[in-house]
Amino acid sequence: MKEVKIIGITGGSGSGKSTIVRKISEVCSDFVFIPQDNYYKSAAYISNENITAFNFDHPDAFDMDLLYRHLSDLKAYRPIKMPLYDFVNHRRRDETVHVDPRPLVIIEGLMVLHDPEIRALLDLKLYVDTPDDIRFIRRLKRDISERGRTLESVCAQYLEVVRPGHFNFIEPTKVYADLIIPEGGYNESALSVLIPFVKGITSADDDV
Amino acid sequence: MKEVKIIGITGGSGSGKSTIVRKISEVCSDFVFIPQDNYYKSAAYISNENITAFNFDHPDAFDMDLLYRHLSDLKAYRPIKMPLYDFVNHRRRDETVHVDPRPLVIIEGLMVLHDPEIRALLDLKLYVDTPDDIRFIRRLKRDISERGRTLESVCAQYLEVVRPGHFNFIEPTKVYADLIIPEGGYNESALSVLIPFVKGITSADDDV
Repeated sequence: MKEVKIIGITGGSGSGKSTIVRKISEVCSDFVFIPQDNYYKSAAYISNENITAFNFDHPDAFDMDLLYRHLSDLKAYRPIKMPLYDFVNHRRRDETVHVDPRPLVIIEGLMVLHDPEIRALLDLKLYVDTPDDIRFIRRLKRDISERGRTLESVCAQYLEVVRPGHFNFIEPTKVYADLIIPEGGYNESALSVLIPFVKGITSADDDV
Repeated sequence: MKEVKIIGITGGSGSGKSTIVRKISEVCSDFVFIPQDNYYKSAAYISNENITAFNFDHPDAFDMDLLYRHLSDLKAYRPIKMPLYDFVNHRRRDETVHVDPRPLVIIEGLMVLHDPEIRALLDLKLYVDTPDDIRFIRRLKRDISERGRTLESVCAQYLEVVRPGHFNFIEPTKVYADLIIPEGGYNESALSVLIPFVKGITSADDDV
């Protein structure tokens, strides 16, 4: 059976964790990418007006069991049917994506290091550590431009659930990290270290 | 002129920073290693009885000008005469070590990220972050077994100068780090990421 390495990347909202994945993929795209956001549970009863009725910043918001099974399958070099999430209507889409196994899997999200069983599957645990105000500003811009939110909605959600969720569930998982990356994907020096490691895993496959 | 990369590794006393260098050197020894400790200024007037009379945990304890010149020389692919330090008699030795330039330089020490001019010479800045009590225990064992100190002397020095120096001068330099490594050389996952990066620099030289 082929050896599969799984890298987990976590950090607060706006920390730069998805930018790390994008920058890696620009130079080496031969890996399976699993955004943990795809594993949100459906919350179709809420709207942008009562967005705080569902806590997206709580571990219970994620279908951790399905995520664990899928990571286990990929680790065993088996394909998965990855769910997709509709962020406008806050629910899992009907369609899934067939994902074939690869020697490298990157899972990225808010609660990647929260679950002990999922942590045990990870070969490298990265925590992206970015100052809280910088993270808020990035989130504000993204939610307004990409997710159709208002300034008031973003601030209320941030103060009521995002910020408490960060300090209750995300920041405490920093202790599990193998490496802490200040500023995430905006940190070119850190990327220069990660990229040879990633290439080493993916190119090892070429020799098989 | 050959391109030279300089990696700076810092962190508190007992953090595991020198263990990182040792573990890297076990798989890839083709680099210049500069321990910042070699650049301590002479303090021959002190003894193990009045060890706190000289503050080894203050930036002024180091000959930063000489360190800067030597790193600049190595960066420009010129050899240096590295000083040596006598930790029993607390003074620079008369002899020096001739060090030829190499494509990779690793500088390791307490104040590697303190000086802005030295920071500017570094291509990768690493901070080794280990809990304070763990660091103290490691230091205690080392100073008693390797440096002939008593328990009382180690504790007094730690409380009077090492600990304040850590929080005044070392911990604040974490903000300059490109990567933060929990537990240092005892962190095998972090080493598995660093080693391909180091090998990439040193093996690039083979192609010249």
